[in-house]
Amino acid sequence: MAFCIGVDIGGTTVKLGIFEEEGRNIEKWEIPTFTENEGVRILPDIAEAIKKKMVQLELKKEDCLGIGVGVPAPVTKEGVVNGTANLGWKYKEVKKELEELTGISSVIGNDANVAALGEMWQGGGKGKQDLVMVTLGTGVGTGFIVGGKLIVGSHGAGGEGGHIRVNYEETESCGCGNRGCLEQYASATGIVRLAKKKLAQETRDTLLTKKEISAKSVFDAVKAKDDVAMEIAEEFGTYLAYGLSNMAALSDPSIFVIGGGVSKAGSVLIDYVEKKYREVAFFANRDVEFALASLGNDAGIIGAAKLALDAVR
Amino acid sequence: MAFCIGVDIGGTTVKLGIFEEEGRNIEKWEIPTFTENEGVRILPDIAEAIKKKMVQLELKKEDCLGIGVGVPAPVTKEGVVNGTANLGWKYKEVKKELEELTGISSVIGNDANVAALGEMWQGGGKGKQDLVMVTLGTGVGTGFIVGGKLIVGSHGAGGEGGHIRVNYEETESCGCGNRGCLEQYASATGIVRLAKKKLAQETRDTLLTKKEISAKSVFDAVKAKDDVAMEIAEEFGTYLAYGLSNMAALSDPSIFVIGGGVSKAGSVLIDYVEKKYREVAFFANRDVEFALASLGNDAGIIGAAKLALDAVR
Repeated sequence: MAFCIGVDIGGTTVKLGIFEEEGRNIEKWEIPTFTENEGVRILPDIAEAIKKKMVQLELKKEDCLGIGVGVPAPVTKEGVVNGTANLGWKYKEVKKELEELTGISSVIGNDANVAALGEMWQGGGKGKQDLVMVTLGTGVGTGFIVGGKLIVGSHGAGGEGGHIRVNYEETESCGCGNRGCLEQYASATGIVRLAKKKLAQETRDTLLTKKEISAKSVFDAVKAKDDVAMEIAEEFGTYLAYGLSNMAALSDPSIFVIGGGVSKAGSVLIDYVEKKYREVAFFANRDVEFALASLGNDAGIIGAAKLALDAVR
Repeated sequence: MAFCIGVDIGGTTVKLGIFEEEGRNIEKWEIPTFTENEGVRILPDIAEAIKKKMVQLELKKEDCLGIGVGVPAPVTKEGVVNGTANLGWKYKEVKKELEELTGISSVIGNDANVAALGEMWQGGGKGKQDLVMVTLGTGVGTGFIVGGKLIVGSHGAGGEGGHIRVNYEETESCGCGNRGCLEQYASATGIVRLAKKKLAQETRDTLLTKKEISAKSVFDAVKAKDDVAMEIAEEFGTYLAYGLSNMAALSDPSIFVIGGGVSKAGSVLIDYVEKKYREVAFFANRDVEFALASLGNDAGIIGAAKLALDAVR
C-alpha cells in the first residue's frame, strides 16, 4: 500500500502522521522536541520514530511516497533553514539530512504554509485552489496558495502576512522590529494589547478586568454583548480586514481560512472581520468566502503529507 | 520555423509582434484600437492584422505555437474579461472569440502581469524566477511572478499592488473608491498630487512652479538638488517603499523591476525607494535587488509572446 508521512516540528513536540495516498490517516503520534545543542537531536529522533513506526505497522520503505515536513521558520526551495527562533537550529540542510537519515525523499516547508496546504486538502478550504490561510496564535502566520501551489518565495519567506503594515502611526514595536505590523493587532497578544489600551482609559462598566485579559475573555464578553469588548473586537476586525485586503490585492483568493487559538472564538470573530473586509477591500477582490479552519492541530501533519504527495505527482 | 505572436491591447493602439521560439523578434507593428460599440471591432481587427502579416511573411498557421494577449483589465484563467475601463468591453470571452477568429490557440492575461513576464524573459529581471514588476504610469500596475509563474488569482485580479494601502489617514479618495492606495502617491498623478500639496504651503525658493508640475519636472528638480523637490521625492519613495515591503512580505521576490513613465527619471528614483525599502521591509525580505525595466513599450508584446510559449511548453 502506497503511503506518505507528514511531520510537523514544533518547539515542544513533533507531530507525525502516516497517510494513505488519498488522504486517510492511518496513524498519528507525537515525540518530544529536544532543542538542546542547537537542536542536533531533532532530525535523528524523527528518523528513528518513523523507522520504528514503519516496522510496527509492517510498512515497506519502497511503498513510501515521501516525507513532508513543516518547520517554524522560512525554508528555501532546497529545503534549507537559515536559523529558527524555537528549535535551536542555525543553518541546517533539513531535506538533505533527513533523506540521509531515512533513505526516503523529503520535502520541507514553512509550518504556516504547510498548514494552509492541509486546510486546502482536507479542511476549511477543501476544494479551493486560491486560498489564504491566516493563523491567529501567539503571532500571526499566513500561508498563500495560488492555483493550488504554495507561494514559497526567493528566500523561503513568502507568505509573511503577519508583517504587512496596517497602521503607519503605531509607536510601539512589533517583535520583528518594525512598527504597525498586523501581528501587533490580530494575534492573541495583539488583542490583549488592544484591550489593555482600551481599559486604561475606560470608565464604562465592562465584564473585562485588567488582570485577566485574554483573546478568549474579550470574545466571551463580546458574546455577552459587552460594549467595551465589542469595540475592541471592532478594532481587531478593522486591522485584520486591512491586512486581508492588502493580501487579497496581491494573491486574489477565493477563500480566507482563519485558524489558530484566537479563531476558537468562532463565527463571531468572522463576523467582525468579514463585514469590515467587504468595506475596505479593492472592489475586484471583495467576493471572497470566509471560513474557520477545521483541522486544528492536525493541519500541520496533513499539510506536510500533501506537500510530500505533490512532490511526486 | 516555429513562431509565436504577442499582442498588447491598449486604449489607443494595439501593438503586435511576431517572435521566434527563442525570443528573437521578427516583426512588430501597430494598429489603432477602435473602442466604439463596446469595442466590437477590436478582436476582429487583431485577427485580420495577424492573418495579413502571416501571409506577407509567408508564415504557416501550423508553425504558430500560439497567440498571447495582454489586456488592460482583470482576466480570468479561462480568458474572460468582465468589463474594461478603456476598451469598451463588458463581459467578453476573449480567448474563445480570438481562437474562433484565428484558428490559433490563445492565452489572455492582464497587461501589467504580462509586462512583468516580458521583463523577466528579456528585460530588467532577466534570469529571475521571483519578481515583482511595478509600473509607475498614470496609475500603478504590478505584476507578481513566483517560481517563474504569474499570480493570476481567483478573479483574475491578482497582482493589484497599486491598491495596497500605504496611508490609513488619507482623506482623499483613490480612483478605486478607497483611500490611501499606493497609486495615490507613486503614480505620475500621485507625484503631482504630493507636489501640489507641498507647494501650496511652501515658502522656500524652488525650481518647481505650481503651473507646470509633473513627475518629470519633480525629478528634474531633484537632479538639480532642489530641496523642495527632494522632499517630495522622499515622500514618494517612502510610500512606494511601504507598498513594496507589503508586497515582499507576501511574495518574497529576489528583484523589483520598476517601469512605466515615471521610471524614466532613472536611477535617482531607485535611490529614493531602495534606501527607504531597506529600512522598512520585513527582515527576511530585505535582500532584494532593484532594477529599472528595460523593454519600454515592448514589454507587453514580449511578455504576451512568452505567455503563449509557456502555455505550450
